[in-house]
This record gives sequence, structure tokens and C-alpha cells, in this order.
Amino acid sequence: MPKDELEDEELSMELPKELGVSKTENFAVWYNRIIQLADLIEKRYNVAGMFVWKPYGFRIMANIKKIWDKLFAESGIQETYFPLIVPLEYAQMNKAWFDGFEDEVFWVKGRGEGDPTHILRPTGEPAMYPIFAMWIRSYKDLPLRIYETVSSFRYETKHTRPLIRDREITFWYEIHTVHATKEESEEELKEHMRINDKIWEALAIPPIKVEKPQWEVFPGAIGAIEYYNIMPNGRMLENGSCNNLGQAYAKKFEITYIDENNQKQYAWQTCTGNGARYLVAAIALHGDDKGLILPPRIAPIQVVIIPIFKEKLEEVLSTCQKIAEALKAADISVEIDATEKTPGEKFYIWEIKGVPLRLEIGPKEVAENFVTAVRRDQGKRQKVEMKDLSLKVAVLLEQVQTNLYLKAQKFYENIVVETNSFTEMKAKINEGKVTLIYWCRSEECADEIERIEGVEIVGVIPTNEARGECIICGKPSGEKTYVAKTY
Amino acid sequence: MPKDELEDEELSMELPKELGVSKTENFAVWYNRIIQLADLIEKRYNVAGMFVWKPYGFRIMANIKKIWDKLFAESGIQETYFPLIVPLEYAQMNKAWFDGFEDEVFWVKGRGEGDPTHILRPTGEPAMYPIFAMWIRSYKDLPLRIYETVSSFRYETKHTRPLIRDREITFWYEIHTVHATKEESEEELKEHMRINDKIWEALAIPPIKVEKPQWEVFPGAIGAIEYYNIMPNGRMLENGSCNNLGQAYAKKFEITYIDENNQKQYAWQTCTGNGARYLVAAIALHGDDKGLILPPRIAPIQVVIIPIFKEKLEEVLSTCQKIAEALKAADISVEIDATEKTPGEKFYIWEIKGVPLRLEIGPKEVAENFVTAVRRDQGKRQKVEMKDLSLKVAVLLEQVQTNLYLKAQKFYENIVVETNSFTEMKAKINEGKVTLIYWCRSEECADEIERIEGVEIVGVIPTNEARGECIICGKPSGEKTYVAKTY
Repeated sequence: MPKDELEDEELSMELPKELGVSKTENFAVWYNRIIQLADLIEKRYNVAGMFVWKPYGFRIMANIKKIWDKLFAESGIQETYFPLIVPLEYAQMNKAWFDGFEDEVFWVKGRGEGDPTHILRPTGEPAMYPIFAMWIRSYKDLPLRIYETVSSFRYETKHTRPLIRDREITFWYEIHTVHATKEESEEELKEHMRINDKIWEALAIPPIKVEKPQWEVFPGAIGAIEYYNIMPNGRMLENGSCNNLGQAYAKKFEITYIDENNQKQYAWQTCTGNGARYLVAAIALHGDDKGLILPPRIAPIQVVIIPIFKEKLEEVLSTCQKIAEALKAADISVEIDATEKTPGEKFYIWEIKGVPLRLEIGPKEVAENFVTAVRRDQGKRQKVEMKDLSLKVAVLLEQVQTNLYLKAQKFYENIVVETNSFTEMKAKINEGKVTLIYWCRSEECADEIERIEGVEIVGVIPTNEARGECIICGKPSGEKTYVAKTY
Repeated sequence: MPKDELEDEELSMELPKELGVSKTENFAVWYNRIIQLADLIEKRYNVAGMFVWKPYGFRIMANIKKIWDKLFAESGIQETYFPLIVPLEYAQMNKAWFDGFEDEVFWVKGRGEGDPTHILRPTGEPAMYPIFAMWIRSYKDLPLRIYETVSSFRYETKHTRPLIRDREITFWYEIHTVHATKEESEEELKEHMRINDKIWEALAIPPIKVEKPQWEVFPGAIGAIEYYNIMPNGRMLENGSCNNLGQAYAKKFEITYIDENNQKQYAWQTCTGNGARYLVAAIALHGDDKGLILPPRIAPIQVVIIPIFKEKLEEVLSTCQKIAEALKAADISVEIDATEKTPGEKFYIWEIKGVPLRLEIGPKEVAENFVTAVRRDQGKRQKVEMKDLSLKVAVLLEQVQTNLYLKAQKFYENIVVETNSFTEMKAKINEGKVTLIYWCRSEECADEIERIEGVEIVGVIPTNEARGECIICGKPSGEKTYVAKTY
């Protein structure tokens, strides 16, 4: 597992000190540089597909995790932890699943043992479901609604990219639920989507939800809703999935319960998972050519105060401190940068790191009782009177949050185009667009569409309002379908 | 790694529904039962030395983690995450360390690979220190003060015991710091001890800190302070260590910096770690023959309200709800048990789970405007007037917290005895006591003492006030030393 050809082309290069590349013109390089320049991660750890979370990156990701922890707790989904090491006998209970996965598992063993008989958790099911079978006896034990946030491990054979495709998938949550009825499990999935929509709101990104084509759903499962983002290069990134497992897994793992009539029944299950790709979306959709722009609701530092030390140094600094105290009291996270760098150097660094609001305070501000505020998403200086400053800062942060959402929405509106023929669709995709087409849901027509290299039927918008004809076979179709290049 | 002879003798037994054993008479069985009956963990996961954290256990442990996260953040120690999988080339940079550890590592590999060349993180150093060497260039990069909370993996050959000795060591934090001078690293360790003392305060347990004998310190390190508890059976449990690494690791991993005179210098390092054993201490020291008794500061449910449904059901329930709301508003975590069980059954369950305070509310309480409160540590019913109830409940919880601390302190006072000769020491240890002796710090005298089976020189109380003579060689000694059976 050394760093190898799977890794990014830039790895061995000295990382430039400046971003020096445009997000829209070369997203891949921009992304690779910004995650390092903004101090999110350290890529030089010498195992392919694995990296170190640096303190600043960790804090952002931990903030996102706090959002899901809170939402899950409010919904009554309880946190647990299942062991990392999974015995083969557990993994093989669902043989079809394991056979499909076998090439991608990490094997683990102790000293002196022969062929390994244990694997590292590739996903939650094989560790959890044999235990669920022990825990669930009667309908009184249902529903079971739990989650864990862990690292999962895939021996990826594809090109890895930090946070997008890793071999150690960090900050990965999985909700797993078990129910007595199909209806209950369907209600549960709606709850997971309600929660996910809330997370996307905090990330200031409009959620795109699609129904996956049936052949891409877990074997035996009823269906899956997946969340997607559109990246600046027009490629779509899967970002979270909500799976209606039906009774497929219950039958493999013997997850049964005795119902009120004393009959044995197979249980109904759902699972929903996502993780660090939430952060990828925030980086990719909000960032600009100066660096990150973090939505205030996930920013570890919401406000940075830059003292402008021309004269009256003590007064300036004590004003900065007073303001910082007031902001903290209003639950706004704030940092004063009192280092020896020049103001220009400081602006530059905090812009790269995406701090949503900068306050500049110098002798003029102190004398005239105002602060100079600069929103990261706008870059314009504005005077803000000192009176009720915390409240005004809270409003400015809320404006950044809203503006980022609207900008992302506008980006989506511009990049998604409806097309009515295969030729038009192909042309638009090659221009870097995401297309919406009508499709009859048949695998044959999908194959026809996916003949274009790198292009995929992403999924169907689950409404029944649209009316059109499949762009391949011409059959009537009630549903719009995303077709795009994907990650 | 199947469940094997390493595992607890009780594993294959059906777990009894009642505790049915006295903590003081048979601590090992009591412990084994309570961690399962109180729903902390699931032991039936089929890998030796690994278990599932159930929601209630997870919440307690997560509360303890929140305490350390907050203390570390206040101290400016920043959270990070380093990969689980460590390349052998990193591990072998400190060859002496790896040779000593090699039998206890888990090996990991991908499909089709020959002999594994990677291990699972047994401890933080081998993943972190090669990266520290990259990060640190100049004195301006120092100090570096970070931590991570992770699972660590040891292929234990000893008898495993959940939370005490696991093969997957969960909720394990490690602080690692790097400094320009020896003095700074010594100050840093004092800070780690100050933080640890605070954690022990939250756990309502007086900390016992000792200096380890030099030959038990990490190879090349300057010294180590370790925390210990005394278990109900008189055996001492190591519970956290603060290590002064000196420059030993810096020299192996080439962690150097350029000082202000442009000279290359090796850095000074410390590391401090602990984890789920904090919970072991709270279980073992505070529990009684009815179950757990959780210190309010770590209890996920601080107050349980039991409605007594004799009559006026709606009034009773709405009173319970009003009280719960008021308590929540005062930041007290509360749960109403409105299930169909009898009050007696509910009392029993919540006592096992160690909820510090129970409020009973029936028609009489509603009519006369009071609640019946029962402290878990006392078991006596007391009337509490409804007026200012949240404040009174907060006081009761504080009293539980203090009382648990005092009880643990008293237990320590009774079980620790000073002895003045080898014969007396041996007799007291065999009676189940922990002894304090004078010892000259020589390895020869230690060997003499440790000839008693299972007995260990635990460590020296780092003060210089005591004056006596080594119980073996008679040389003058300034220091009292703990000698006891250990885990």
C-alpha cells in the first residue's frame, strides 16, 4: 500500500505557496492545492489513499459531525460503536455481497496466524447485523434505530482522491434501523432524508436527491435515494445514500421477531450513510480563487479580528479583545490574529482558510467607534457601528450563509440543462453541463446513454409531474433523469 | 482471533437477569455482569477482546470524552486524526520499540499481497512522529501540541477483560507535544496532570499519581507519571500515563528544529494517554450491589422521573412533563419512564443503570405539591417541595457527586496501609490491602519485593517529604512507594 500510481499527479511536487490556479478552469488542481494550503489535511502520509486530518480541517469536519449528531439525537437515533475487525463468518452471511466486495477488503491477522480470517470493516452491516439478530426477539424490541461514526476501509483499485475516494474513509456515519413493517421502514427513510436536508441547509447547498436505477441498488434491496452535488467541472459527486433494504438482509442474517400473534417474521431494514464528502461539497461549491469560503454554520472560526497596529497599539488591542469577548458571549466563534505579520499577509491567510467574516480594527476605528467588516463572499469593506455589534455580526454571518446558498443554487441553475435528444445531451455534457432528460427506466436505453465515456444515468427525480418521451426509445416517461459525468 | 481461552470464564454462560453477586466479595464476576446488565456493552461479538458499545454505555463514555475534549481545547491542545494503517518503515524507525511490540501487532494487507508490510496503529507514535519531522522546521513551529481520540490495536496474549484489557482499545486519547526545551516539555506535563486531575474530579475519584520505576519507562525516555486506581479487590489498575520522552524519540524520528542561532537541535517531547479505563474506575469505585452509581457529571441521564399511576393519570403525567421541561431548561438531563412496567420494576432497572437521582411523582405528590426524591447513593426517600425544584435537584446532584468522591476517598484511606517490613507488607497484601513502603529505588530491592506472585512496585509518590528506610536494604529513602497486586 505505498503511495503509488493511484495517487494524485501533484503529490510529489512541492506544494506551491499560492493557490495560483482558477477553480473554474482547473478544478482538480485547485481542489488538491486548497485542501493542503488551507491546512485541512496532510497528504504526505506514506500510505496510498490515507491522509492526516490537521487541526483546522478536523475542526471543520467535527462541526459537521456535531450537526448530524444533534439531528440524530433529536430524532432518537442512538449512537453506538461496533468493532473494526470483522470475522469472515459474519461477512459471508451475505455471500453475494461479500463476493462483490472481496477484492476491496483489507485482511488482518495476528502474528503467527496463517491466511487471515478477519477483515477490516468495509461497511457497517457485517459487524452489526449478526448482533441485531441477537438483540431482536419480539416486536417489543422494534424499532431499533442506531448509528455509528467510524472509519471504514476499502482497498480501492481506482485513483484515490483525498476526502472523495479514500482507502481509509474517515468520519463516516451509518444509520441502521430495523422495523416490524415495510411502512415503518419507509417512514424511517423519509426521516433520514429530512435530516439530510437539514445538514445540506447547514452546508448552504441545495440538495439534489435522485432515485437510483434498480440495478444499482444493493442486491435484494427495494430501492435507494442518493444525494448528489454538481462539482465546478460539471461532474456529479454522490454524496450520501438512503437505502430501503426491505427484508433482503434480514433473510441473510436471520433478523426475525415474534409478532403480536406469536408468529416469526423477518424484519424490515434501512441504512443511510455519509461522511467527509459533505466537506468536499462545501469546499468545491463555495470556494473561489482566493481559497475556501466556509458557511458560517460549519466554520470553526466565524470571525477573525485583525488589529491594525499603526498607532495606539494598546487601545487597538484592548478594543479587539473587548469585541472578541462580546462575540463569544453571543456564541460566535472568533479569533484575534495578533501575530507579527502584516495586515495584508493576515488577510491573505484567513481568506485561504475561508473565515466568513473579517473585522479590521485600527486607530481610526477605535477613535470613531466602528469596525471595518469584510464578508469573505463579497470582499468589500463596510463600516459597522460598534453599538449592538454582536447582533450585527450575527446578521452579517447569516447573510453570508444565505448568499452562499443562493450562489450555489444559481450555479446549479446555470449548469443543469434539459435536453430532448441523445445528440443534444451528449453535446451539452461535453460542454461541461449536467443534463436532465426523459428516460423510460429500461436498462437497454441506459446502456445506450452510458456508451458515452464517463457518462452515467445518475438517477431519477422522484416526482411524477414531468411528462415526456424517453430520448432513446421514445416511450412515454413521467420522470426527469440526471445524466452527467460522475466521480 | 475467535473468542477463546483468553476470554472471561462467564462468556458462554447465559447472563443472569439479576446482579446476584456482591461487589466486595466477588468483584470480577460483579464487574462482568454489571457492564452487561446495565447495557453498557455487548460481549457476544465474536472476536476475542472486542465488544460492541451499546447506546447507554456509549453515552456515558461520550460524556467522559466531552470532558477531555473541552479541557484540551481550553488548554490549546488541538484535535487531529492520523491514519489507522501504519507502514512498517514508520514503525521501524524506532527499532527497539518495534521489536518489543512486534508480537502484539495486528498485520494488515490488501488482496493478492504477500507478507503484510503494514500494521494497525498500536499507539500513536509511529504514525505521528514521521509527520512531525515534516512539520517542524524552525523554533517558530514549536510548541506543537496535538491529540487524537481513536481505537488502538494490540494483539493481547494476556486474558482480555472488556474496557480493562481489550484488543481493540476504544475511546483512546493520546496527547503528543513537541518543544524547543526540556523545561517547556516539563511544564507541558504538569499541564497534562492538571487536566487529568480535573477529569478525575468529574469522575468523583481522588487521583493517585506515582512516578514509575526507571526501568518501566519507555526506552530512552526521562520518566513517567502514571495514574492508578485501587479496585474493590485491592488490586491497582493503571489509569493514564504522562510520559516525559526527552529527546529519545526525536533522535529516532529525526524531529529537529533550527533554533534562533540557526543551529539544528533535537526537539523535546511528551505524550499522555488514557481512555475507557476512566469508565472502569467509575464503575468499580462507585457501584454497589444494586448496580452502577454514576457521578452526575458523567451520567447521560441525571434524573429519572417515575410517574406513580394509581389515579389521576393525566395530572400525574402532565406534572412529570412540566418538571422534566423545567429540569431540561436548567441543563439537567432527565428522562420520564412512562412505560407499562410497575414502579418497582422501574426502580430496579434505573438503579442498575446508576441514574444518580430518581423522582417519584404520584397523585399524593401532585395534590400536595412536592416530589419524592431518592438519591442513588443513599436509597432514602425524601420529600422535596416543588418550589424552585430545578435548583434543589441541582443541589441534590451536587451532593451525590461530592458524596461519591468522599466515599471513594474513604475506601482508599481504609485499604491503603503503611508497612515497615517485607513480612508485614506481604501479609497486608495477602489480606487484600495496598501497601505503602519505603524503597531505595534500586532494581535489586524491587526484584526482592516482586518475588511475591502478582505483586508489583507500582510507583513512587513524587514528593520529598517522607523520611524512612528501604524495607529491603535499609538504605535511607525519601519517598513512599505503592506496592500492590495489579491488573
